[in-house]
Amino acid sequence: MHDADYRMRAMPAAMLQALQQRFGPRCHTGLAMREQHGRDESPFDVPPPEAVVFAESEDDVAFTLALAHEHSVPVIPYGSGTSLEGHLLAVQGGVSLDVSRMNKILLINAEDLTVTVQAGVTRQQLNAELRHAGLFFPIDPGADASLGGMAATRASGTNAVRYGTMRENVLGLGAVTAQGQVLRTGTRARKSSAGYDLTRLLVGSEGTLAVITEVCLRIYPLPEAVSAAVCFFPTVDAAVQTTIQIIQMGLPIARCELLDANTVRAVNRHDQLGLREAPMLLMEFHGSPSGVAEQAQAVQEIARELGGEDFDWASTPEARTRLWTARHHAYLSAVQSKPGCRCVTTDTCVPISRLAESINTSVAEVEAAGLPYFLVGHVGDGNFHLGYLIDPALPHERETAERLSHQMVMRALSLEGTCTGEHGIGLHKQGFLLEEAGEPAVAMMRSIKQALDPRNIMNPGKIFQL
Amino acid sequence: MHDADYRMRAMPAAMLQALQQRFGPRCHTGLAMREQHGRDESPFDVPPPEAVVFAESEDDVAFTLALAHEHSVPVIPYGSGTSLEGHLLAVQGGVSLDVSRMNKILLINAEDLTVTVQAGVTRQQLNAELRHAGLFFPIDPGADASLGGMAATRASGTNAVRYGTMRENVLGLGAVTAQGQVLRTGTRARKSSAGYDLTRLLVGSEGTLAVITEVCLRIYPLPEAVSAAVCFFPTVDAAVQTTIQIIQMGLPIARCELLDANTVRAVNRHDQLGLREAPMLLMEFHGSPSGVAEQAQAVQEIARELGGEDFDWASTPEARTRLWTARHHAYLSAVQSKPGCRCVTTDTCVPISRLAESINTSVAEVEAAGLPYFLVGHVGDGNFHLGYLIDPALPHERETAERLSHQMVMRALSLEGTCTGEHGIGLHKQGFLLEEAGEPAVAMMRSIKQALDPRNIMNPGKIFQL
Repeated sequence: MHDADYRMRAMPAAMLQALQQRFGPRCHTGLAMREQHGRDESPFDVPPPEAVVFAESEDDVAFTLALAHEHSVPVIPYGSGTSLEGHLLAVQGGVSLDVSRMNKILLINAEDLTVTVQAGVTRQQLNAELRHAGLFFPIDPGADASLGGMAATRASGTNAVRYGTMRENVLGLGAVTAQGQVLRTGTRARKSSAGYDLTRLLVGSEGTLAVITEVCLRIYPLPEAVSAAVCFFPTVDAAVQTTIQIIQMGLPIARCELLDANTVRAVNRHDQLGLREAPMLLMEFHGSPSGVAEQAQAVQEIARELGGEDFDWASTPEARTRLWTARHHAYLSAVQSKPGCRCVTTDTCVPISRLAESINTSVAEVEAAGLPYFLVGHVGDGNFHLGYLIDPALPHERETAERLSHQMVMRALSLEGTCTGEHGIGLHKQGFLLEEAGEPAVAMMRSIKQALDPRNIMNPGKIFQL
Repeated sequence: MHDADYRMRAMPAAMLQALQQRFGPRCHTGLAMREQHGRDESPFDVPPPEAVVFAESEDDVAFTLALAHEHSVPVIPYGSGTSLEGHLLAVQGGVSLDVSRMNKILLINAEDLTVTVQAGVTRQQLNAELRHAGLFFPIDPGADASLGGMAATRASGTNAVRYGTMRENVLGLGAVTAQGQVLRTGTRARKSSAGYDLTRLLVGSEGTLAVITEVCLRIYPLPEAVSAAVCFFPTVDAAVQTTIQIIQMGLPIARCELLDANTVRAVNRHDQLGLREAPMLLMEFHGSPSGVAEQAQAVQEIARELGGEDFDWASTPEARTRLWTARHHAYLSAVQSKPGCRCVTTDTCVPISRLAESINTSVAEVEAAGLPYFLVGHVGDGNFHLGYLIDPALPHERETAERLSHQMVMRALSLEGTCTGEHGIGLHKQGFLLEEAGEPAVAMMRSIKQALDPRNIMNPGKIFQL
């Protein structure tokens, strides 16, 4: 495991003065605000940034970057603080650039199924607005993340099995370079062969190449019919085998989520749901009424053959909301099930034919280690998360979690998968990236970084070491 | 219009000797072979490369690049020679690196719907092999292009409206850098957030950043039911309005192609098809039998309301092949309709709501100019091609074609579209790229190029000027 580069770079007084002059009360140096911006959902402890500024325009972002470039001081973009991989942590000091107030929905093009938003708009805010027009944006990582942050980490979550990830759904970006230059990538056309794909280079670059200020997204008509179902299985393996068959048949399932018994137990306690405490698949189908019925029928047959029971349909929006609440509260509920714990989360993704091996062995290993854990998965994509619940006061628990996580990633790579399906590399997966991509590919990434950000001010210390 | 950089760079004798030693009879310096590799489907005349080598392995590619890097000599990757934008032309001399003999299908993973091929495998070769397994690869640019070339130009064509382009369907690449270093990008997992998206940076980079040696692709089960149909319209506009409504309704049509009356006339003459010589939509539907019937019904209703007539179904493979032959021979048939002509092709793509304006004005302009032309379009994507048929002996015809093309691109950009939906920038659209992306974005592309290929040996003179 290669860790990040933690060399602190102090902010000169002249830079702080310039920030205060520009931002006035929108520039904060108080500890509470700095600590709030120096922490995300990751389990790492790092000193907070030296200052926090709230950008309200692309000009504010450009000003901050030009200034930081002049002084060679790190800038860490901040959206909604929901990263799990330490993306926000000021490992080399510097300024946290909060774009959450850049939260305007700029243009909904219902005719072309595109929307243009500022980077701080969150997915729930966007969907609340789109609903009036009979439209929706499907990418749903659980947390109410900002769309700029979701682009920066190449997020996905439920619905990706049908609609793809941020990679497929970002048409173009507004961004500001390390030198403070504003640029636009992509167009509103559905496809283009015009030069290098800067859009997809910036999507997933974790704030290390540019600060995303604007996102143009594909959106979708609300499906004519939506139906959700749960089904319980005797074992995790039976649920996984069901998933594999659904995907291999080419069924256009919209969501296919696995919750293990530990997770169901935790959400039951958290939300009083009264679900059967067994491995559970939570599925959703989108389409025409007859198309949805056809898909549901096919899935039910597969599930039954593999021991699935208590198939339960939720066709009303209220019933669906209840089920998806269970899924969305899984992380929080599980963490609350062990008071005072921290959660070490894994995020491997493998080809679907390798999913059973990947999950079964990982579960056997954590059971053998005796660490409390929970398992949730976007299994339709081959992606799942084990959350190891560790006591921060017991170093051996962290060591055990790290060892299990390491074994799991190495196995995923040997199964031709990836160390991170959707959370990103951030602070602590840099060694895994090197294992996965190989030195020549990481060297290429490093060359690009050095060319675009020669002073290493853009979220330094993340993804790889320079 | 900015033209490419044509400064010739001679190959030192030592380099030629080293190539001859390595490649033996696979290294060619004869004029015929050089001329064949110094020409593509573009209308440009440029001296041929100084040598042609046939690579049979990734090692051959790495050897050639390391050698070329040492001597600062250009290398131009060559797949099947079907580029329309001058990508293959040796504008600064150098060696043509032919990968067509790297034509092994390395691994079909039917369970995961992925296939790994060497870069020289063509799409027809791949589909002939996949058919046995009940699978297919949908991207179809018309020509029997190599998959390495299709990745390098971010190709699409028919079927993209449903299945996406090379951008969406390449999972990973094998490639060799300008320094002769072999690397792999991506994994066989469906999604990943592991570092910069090098796969999509190389897809569409037109051989200017690395030579693609291997491609891992998504493949699809052959649909249970396939149905194709033609429908004729009183005007191009009526056909375009029909398309817009189909797309805006969210119908999952698999192919939606427009041929104008000039094109139908040309393919009738070329293939004795006896089609009605009017604007024609050629459509295909994929899905379950009931799903296909549902889609076809909906489309027929839209078309009828807009004056569509002679709706004709082709449900047998033979009848479908006949129709798609017409589409695939469109370019050749049109060019042959004016003996001795050259074809200047446009490739704009706009948001679907702007398609009628984009097509109608462009047609009116070419009609007013009196130049023979034909129009074909992947209209479901908002992408269409006008082919201006010019007499190479009459400079004013080329000037007229260039003027029309320029007007058309500027209009596409003002409609929030792109100058190239699928052909790439190549030699002659560099000014358009600058208009479209803006100087800061092109500067970012240039920085990446300079970082990865500091001696500018990778297909120099293409996409932008350094």
